[in-house]
Amino acid sequence: MGKIEVAILMGSDSDYPVMQKAEEVLDEFGVEYETRVLSAHRTPKQTTDFVISSVKNKVKVFIAGAGGAAHLPGIVAAHTILPVIGVPIMGKSMNGLDSLLSIVQMPSGIPVATVSIDGAKNAALLAVQIIATSNTALQNKLYNYKKKMEEEVLNKDKQLKKK
Amino acid sequence: MGKIEVAILMGSDSDYPVMQKAEEVLDEFGVEYETRVLSAHRTPKQTTDFVISSVKNKVKVFIAGAGGAAHLPGIVAAHTILPVIGVPIMGKSMNGLDSLLSIVQMPSGIPVATVSIDGAKNAALLAVQIIATSNTALQNKLYNYKKKMEEEVLNKDKQLKKK
Amino acid sequence: MGKIEVAILMGSDSDYPVMQKAEEVLDEFGVEYETRVLSAHRTPKQTTDFVISSVKNKVKVFIAGAGGAAHLPGIVAAHTILPVIGVPIMGKSMNGLDSLLSIVQMPSGIPVATVSIDGAKNAALLAVQIIATSNTALQNKLYNYKKKMEEEVLNKDKQLKKK
Amino acid sequence: MGKIEVAILMGSDSDYPVMQKAEEVLDEFGVEYETRVLSAHRTPKQTTDFVISSVKNKVKVFIAGAGGAAHLPGIVAAHTILPVIGVPIMGKSMNGLDSLLSIVQMPSGIPVATVSIDGAKNAALLAVQIIATSNTALQNKLYNYKKKMEEEVLNKDKQLKKK
Amino acid sequence: MGKIEVAILMGSDSDYPVMQKAEEVLDEFGVEYETRVLSAHRTPKQTTDFVISSVKNKVKVFIAGAGGAAHLPGIVAAHTILPVIGVPIMGKSMNGLDSLLSIVQMPSGIPVATVSIDGAKNAALLAVQIIATSNTALQNKLYNYKKKMEEEVLNKDKQLKKK
Amino acid sequence: MGKIEVAILMGSDSDYPVMQKAEEVLDEFGVEYETRVLSAHRTPKQTTDFVISSVKNKVKVFIAGAGGAAHLPGIVAAHTILPVIGVPIMGKSMNGLDSLLSIVQMPSGIPVATVSIDGAKNAALLAVQIIATSNTALQNKLYNYKKKMEEEVLNKDKQLKKK
Amino acid sequence: MGKIEVAILMGSDSDYPVMQKAEEVLDEFGVEYETRVLSAHRTPKQTTDFVISSVKNKVKVFIAGAGGAAHLPGIVAAHTILPVIGVPIMGKSMNGLDSLLSIVQMPSGIPVATVSIDGAKNAALLAVQIIATSNTALQNKLYNYKKKMEEEVLNKDKQLKKK
Amino acid sequence: MGKIEVAILMGSDSDYPVMQKAEEVLDEFGVEYETRVLSAHRTPKQTTDFVISSVKNKVKVFIAGAGGAAHLPGIVAAHTILPVIGVPIMGKSMNGLDSLLSIVQMPSGIPVATVSIDGAKNAALLAVQIIATSNTALQNKLYNYKKKMEEEVLNKDKQLKKK
Repeated sequence: MGKIEVAILMGSDSDYPVMQKAEEVLDEFGVEYETRVLSAHRTPKQTTDFVISSVKNKVKVFIAGAGGAAHLPGIVAAHTILPVIGVPIMGKSMNGLDSLLSIVQMPSGIPVATVSIDGAKNAALLAVQIIATSNTALQNKLYNYKKKMEEEVLNKDKQLKKK
Repeated sequence: MGKIEVAILMGSDSDYPVMQKAEEVLDEFGVEYETRVLSAHRTPKQTTDFVISSVKNKVKVFIAGAGGAAHLPGIVAAHTILPVIGVPIMGKSMNGLDSLLSIVQMPSGIPVATVSIDGAKNAALLAVQIIATSNTALQNKLYNYKKKMEEEVLNKDKQLKKK
Repeated sequence: MGKIEVAILMGSDSDYPVMQKAEEVLDEFGVEYETRVLSAHRTPKQTTDFVISSVKNKVKVFIAGAGGAAHLPGIVAAHTILPVIGVPIMGKSMNGLDSLLSIVQMPSGIPVATVSIDGAKNAALLAVQIIATSNTALQNKLYNYKKKMEEEVLNKDKQLKKK
Repeated sequence: MGKIEVAILMGSDSDYPVMQKAEEVLDEFGVEYETRVLSAHRTPKQTTDFVISSVKNKVKVFIAGAGGAAHLPGIVAAHTILPVIGVPIMGKSMNGLDSLLSIVQMPSGIPVATVSIDGAKNAALLAVQIIATSNTALQNKLYNYKKKMEEEVLNKDKQLKKK
Repeated sequence: MGKIEVAILMGSDSDYPVMQKAEEVLDEFGVEYETRVLSAHRTPKQTTDFVISSVKNKVKVFIAGAGGAAHLPGIVAAHTILPVIGVPIMGKSMNGLDSLLSIVQMPSGIPVATVSIDGAKNAALLAVQIIATSNTALQNKLYNYKKKMEEEVLNKDKQLKKK
Repeated sequence: MGKIEVAILMGSDSDYPVMQKAEEVLDEFGVEYETRVLSAHRTPKQTTDFVISSVKNKVKVFIAGAGGAAHLPGIVAAHTILPVIGVPIMGKSMNGLDSLLSIVQMPSGIPVATVSIDGAKNAALLAVQIIATSNTALQNKLYNYKKKMEEEVLNKDKQLKKK
Repeated sequence: MGKIEVAILMGSDSDYPVMQKAEEVLDEFGVEYETRVLSAHRTPKQTTDFVISSVKNKVKVFIAGAGGAAHLPGIVAAHTILPVIGVPIMGKSMNGLDSLLSIVQMPSGIPVATVSIDGAKNAALLAVQIIATSNTALQNKLYNYKKKMEEEVLNKDKQLKKK
Repeated sequence: MGKIEVAILMGSDSDYPVMQKAEEVLDEFGVEYETRVLSAHRTPKQTTDFVISSVKNKVKVFIAGAGGAAHLPGIVAAHTILPVIGVPIMGKSMNGLDSLLSIVQMPSGIPVATVSIDGAKNAALLAVQIIATSNTALQNKLYNYKKKMEEEVLNKDKQLKKK
């Protein structure tokens, strides 16, 4: 097994069905990752410790998913200078607007790279893009992935025409 | 000087014009407080340390004000079992909705007692009410304060009638 | 049976499935409570009478849940100097934003400690935190509760790793 | 002086610049009114007493203006079977959405006739329309008022053409 | 059969399940009404004609329900000086905010008395309150209705205590 | 003077500073227009009459601007089968969301072509695009206009580089 | 088969159930169209090529449906001077507000004629209205369609009366 | 002069006062950049060409700022596999919510790393963090920057205490 390059965190295991899509993309790209359930509020010390040890272990990117008053991505960002990607997770009330604003409206100096509500797949792709900035093999995989997406749209276009 | 019972935190000194109103109320009630500029994102360690030392020093209530992706109240709450009062501070965009949702939509297990947008005055009153649950003298002051508010409304009512 | 320390109010029995979670938490902490269906609009006199008699009976905290134009917490707060915790309850339209704003945006002088939409569990925890400011036994229970939450997250973290 | 038919209430004298427009319309229609500063939260007893005494004095309609967690119109409605018109007043945050939702989203059984944000003028016109349902002279004044509005638009239309 | 005092309009028969609740309340109070499907956009002429003929027939109040870009209540109000009550009806998107704002934010001079989203029951009660301003028998019915609502809440309160 | 091809309506002359930008664009393209202040609520008959007479006079497109509960574009659309372009105008409260939703959320069967909040300039361009579907000269003007916009951006790009 | 006058685009075949309603309306009016699945993000080149070739083939109007960060209508508009109609499609989060704002808030110079959320039927009607500005036969069909809508409302009105 | 590593784009030079803050941060870190005014709608070809040539020139990250229906970041992302950072820019209406949703709600497969409304400074920091994943010198600068931010907060904390 290769070196872990992406750390995936979520505040609750109820977020796993959403965050699992990030794992699938990283698997597809052959990027090693570690997935953890760690809460900014219920396990703040372990969260901090994990961020610090991940940095020591040369993780390159963090992905953090959270719902409601979604503090996890921001708290990860507080403890590292690595890029942190935030995934707003939709809850029962407020249609995801609460987690989106809690993640994206970060103060000056501590950015969180926010993706769409429940957008764990895009979070993983963004992580791959970031790692690929110094990894030509991964860049090629991204080109192929983009090509494949294009072909899928064109195929669906053809299928629609047949109707 | 008496014992400090309320700790007031804000993430940036630009929040002080709003949070100062909390100090004024606590002064009026003769409740001792300490006011600190500490950020959940820029000084996470000092924030945690301050919460822990405040708890040791027998502070009774925390008041934390923050704007945007307002994580400070939630992070204070993560490190204490004392009541934490959150003040959403209005920024340039989003009319205060971002800080309100970032503070009030806390996950199960970690409550933050949220007051109105820019409502530092009410935050201090709520802190006094909490301390007063075991302080009869303070309860009497609260009754007088309530009485005075009533009289102010009735006076304004009289003044309006004269017009 | 011990002394009632928390009064739980709701405007309609349709709010009970949400508010019941407050009862469960108070049961867990051994805090006595009384639960009442009383409406700010349909039984204003009985609501006021109940607040006044609860104050006489040395209740320490009020928890009030309401949906839509949620006036109950504010009306309870109008009649007492005790801490009042408001639970915004989500209705069919507006995703809970109506009850949240109706509860949290209280005018100067009359705070309501607002928790998350449908956050009755956190309302009860906040009530326990408030009572615990003068009750060391309850403080210890809160530390244990916090510890247990931490362990639950760490257990879920372990289970996720096994997958 | 004639009999008072409309009672105008506001929670704070800071609402008077908005609510004054209701007085101007009632003056124009020769409908007698009484204007009071009374708060649902700071003077709940006086508010209730005023509503009850107004009902005894055969007031026909209430107009209540309030901002933020705007409870005044709903509380007036709780104590009377007369029509209550609510005016949401815009505050610094939330663009008036908070007061609008706090007034309009009333529970079943207790309607409040809500007008536009800061719409005190329309509140007064609605009050006149309600009184006019049993007052032919007032109906004629309303027809003339409507005719005059029409002419004003047509005049402005002419002036625009000249440009 | 008595004289029709309330005209109920809706833009589409798909609004009838909501608007039917207005009919039930009027039936309960013995107030005669006429219910019509008439659209501000699809049958503008018939809508105008109906408003004008209703006014001639001495209808006292209009209730108009509409969803989306809800223009029906405002268009009715454009053609009469009688009170017009608007019921915002919730559609699939926007949670009812679209119809609420389309109805409540009327320009100066043309008020629409807006009730809660899907609040047809309250619209009917408001209509009864308006008619009752000159009808003592109806006032008494409203007092009884209010009394009954109070008793229902108190009964539910008793039932909850038994649990 | 040529034939009038576009009718511009607004509900109030206070909308003219916004709607004037539509006139400027039509002047630039040499498209004749007529501008009128006519209200869906205050002059409903004149509005309808104007729409009908404009249709007889072979106007090709309507542009209607309105704020708040913006009914004017929808009411114009109710009386014609010609394309109607709606301009939501921002008022003091609600940031333009009220007029946007009141215009864009039209029911099935009666479309209004909605442009951005205060987007009178784009409304006029859309009108020109519509007329140009059967007018080659106008199409050429549109190509030139597009080319000029492109050049303006490229010029600003050059100026920025010089800094 | 006649000449294609309308090009319908959507970013994903998952939008087809909504966009199909546009096809049904165009079929009803006998207006020829071509429907394509083409994405502003996944197939930008093919999208641009299709717009350019459609313009060469004398298509008269574009209809583009998209959800979320809905860029397709704006990107089509960037490449043509023909009228572009945008259909905001509702996704799981944000109730359609995201796609509505992404489509309607276009910058000066590049209008998109926006219809209601999921309003593909109205998009097609608007396209027919635009084509009909130079096609008398189509104008007559639109008058008949409007007449039929009127009759449908009147029929539903009759059916309601029977109940 | 070193190699350009970041390309900054904005749709209009009116966005420059916001985007300039990105330049200042990159200057501070000694990261070379190129700033361009290029519009997704008014210069789509030049935008695409610039993205493609920047990729050839081994740019590592794009930063794109846009307001309203903010398509520029998404369109850049459509043409590259490099990380694209989007800055939502606040306009006159909608408080920045329109540009935020237009940028963050990107479809699966094409991520845009979104920062806060008007958050150009954080966009640049995120760009530096991304480049630093393969640049130890830049990592050290980021640690120093973080340290300096910490010290600034602690200084402001000291100054507040002196008051």
